[in-house]
Amino acid sequence: MDKFLCGIDLGGTKINTVIITNKGEMVSSYTLPTLAHEGPEKVIQRMKETVYKVLEDAKLDVSDLEGIGVASPGPLDAKKGIVLNPPNLPGWIDITLAKILEDEFKIPVKLQNDANCAALAEYYFGAGNRTKNFVYITISTGIGGGAIIDGKLYDGANSNAAEFGHASINFDGEKCQCGSYGCFEMYASGTALANFAAKEIEKGRESVIKDIAKDGKITAKDVFEAYKMGDNLAKELIEREAFYLGVGIANIIMNYNPEVIALGGGVANGFDILYPIMIKTVEERCYKASFEGCKIVKAKLGQNSGAIGAAVLNIVFSKN
Amino acid sequence: MDKFLCGIDLGGTKINTVIITNKGEMVSSYTLPTLAHEGPEKVIQRMKETVYKVLEDAKLDVSDLEGIGVASPGPLDAKKGIVLNPPNLPGWIDITLAKILEDEFKIPVKLQNDANCAALAEYYFGAGNRTKNFVYITISTGIGGGAIIDGKLYDGANSNAAEFGHASINFDGEKCQCGSYGCFEMYASGTALANFAAKEIEKGRESVIKDIAKDGKITAKDVFEAYKMGDNLAKELIEREAFYLGVGIANIIMNYNPEVIALGGGVANGFDILYPIMIKTVEERCYKASFEGCKIVKAKLGQNSGAIGAAVLNIVFSKN
Repeated sequence: MDKFLCGIDLGGTKINTVIITNKGEMVSSYTLPTLAHEGPEKVIQRMKETVYKVLEDAKLDVSDLEGIGVASPGPLDAKKGIVLNPPNLPGWIDITLAKILEDEFKIPVKLQNDANCAALAEYYFGAGNRTKNFVYITISTGIGGGAIIDGKLYDGANSNAAEFGHASINFDGEKCQCGSYGCFEMYASGTALANFAAKEIEKGRESVIKDIAKDGKITAKDVFEAYKMGDNLAKELIEREAFYLGVGIANIIMNYNPEVIALGGGVANGFDILYPIMIKTVEERCYKASFEGCKIVKAKLGQNSGAIGAAVLNIVFSKN
Repeated sequence: MDKFLCGIDLGGTKINTVIITNKGEMVSSYTLPTLAHEGPEKVIQRMKETVYKVLEDAKLDVSDLEGIGVASPGPLDAKKGIVLNPPNLPGWIDITLAKILEDEFKIPVKLQNDANCAALAEYYFGAGNRTKNFVYITISTGIGGGAIIDGKLYDGANSNAAEFGHASINFDGEKCQCGSYGCFEMYASGTALANFAAKEIEKGRESVIKDIAKDGKITAKDVFEAYKMGDNLAKELIEREAFYLGVGIANIIMNYNPEVIALGGGVANGFDILYPIMIKTVEERCYKASFEGCKIVKAKLGQNSGAIGAAVLNIVFSKN
């Protein structure tokens, strides 16, 4: 009988762990808060706890698993299974996470960038539909991505391929926290959308956005909310968001010429609202054949995509 | 005994045809002017002529060839072997070039984008040195490129992957002839460098560039010439060129995270002059690990890279 696959999505705020079959069927899942401020040792303890819990819920033993995959924020050394120093995991410096978990569970553990895992999940069981050349983009606090080339995850020299959020779309733009200038995510991430809204409101623009925002802290979700209520500022901001997304996606198409691009992350919840201006912008800024050869769709797997993709790492890499 | 490989580089100004061994050793080569204005029929006749000539010079028969590869300007349909409608080949509309040559020579004929062929050649026999993840960029009249991923040419859904020249580095920039705005090649191609020079001189800037330029028509080469003579304007322009190259290369690294990038094309003749500012810009605008994991070098094969890469198509695709 085929074994089961376990995937852990290690996020800055929560640890989401799943067991799936090799057809992508969900067997069990469990989520704990990361409590990242407690440092790596305690976080890893909680990761182990989630694995034991999903095994118990599924009435399975560790020996029923093909392996464990971990989706982690970057930067990391995927080949060596080491988490280097992710900004949202304080205290994590060169943690040999794969080895630590292998020592605990005595089965193979693979590590991969979280956006790459989501790309794998969408490729195998979601919007990618096993289309040979597939790109996944997550538009959330930041913008990340992953590329499947010829049916295999492409992660480059050191797991940093498809870092779309930090390709520049304006070389003369403002400095990004990454050190570069005018990065795609400075214009089109959820954070950027919220910041643009806050700036306009500070300037005195009338808008329901500030009434919607809890504690005065505007989020991208608030802007979409206001848009649905017919708010003028929200309409302008969402149109600009759609335009910026189009610019960045056109660049991705000129680089990768993929057959399918799937958009995930919180901002992609507004996919239908963003689509018309986004697609018009992509069309204007791409080769005709490349545009016509590429479907742009909404990702399907939602918040489980990281954990599912992590689980899949064990299939993918055992084939290489 | 291993068979020989024939490659034809169909350019807007010349047809360059070679026979090589499968180790990349040059056996014979021959060049004819394309005379593109005479239309596809006459150009294809001259292509055939070059093949018969390189066979004769090498004292080989068609049956000694594994196959023929053709490097063609895009857009094309590589899989079907059709040249669609390249701007610099007037009258070429949906020409079934591979089939026409197969009918003549009765051996397999493969077609591929010229920059992709150059990438293949540099990967196998040049600066790429068979490094698994390799990107080639040609900086000439325009900017093109090709990507080798996991040791194989990656050409995407329809041979338009790695069209780096038409990814935007300034979404609000001027309109490009491709329809997009602020494309990389509008800033960093040889044509762009020459245009920036012409504009400054029109504005009345003193420079030896205009004395060097033949018939008053400034080329990128003239700017490099003036630079070597200590010309101030040329120095400024070359520094700006190096900066723009750095911006575009950083974006390529964020997309592809390759192990090696090789720069070819006329502007890359000034590689050593451009390198310091270019590499500083790349470093500033990339993830540290991605920058450190990537060597940026000058391409090695020069003007024969297109034809050599075309010849290699027959090895590469027979392996798939």
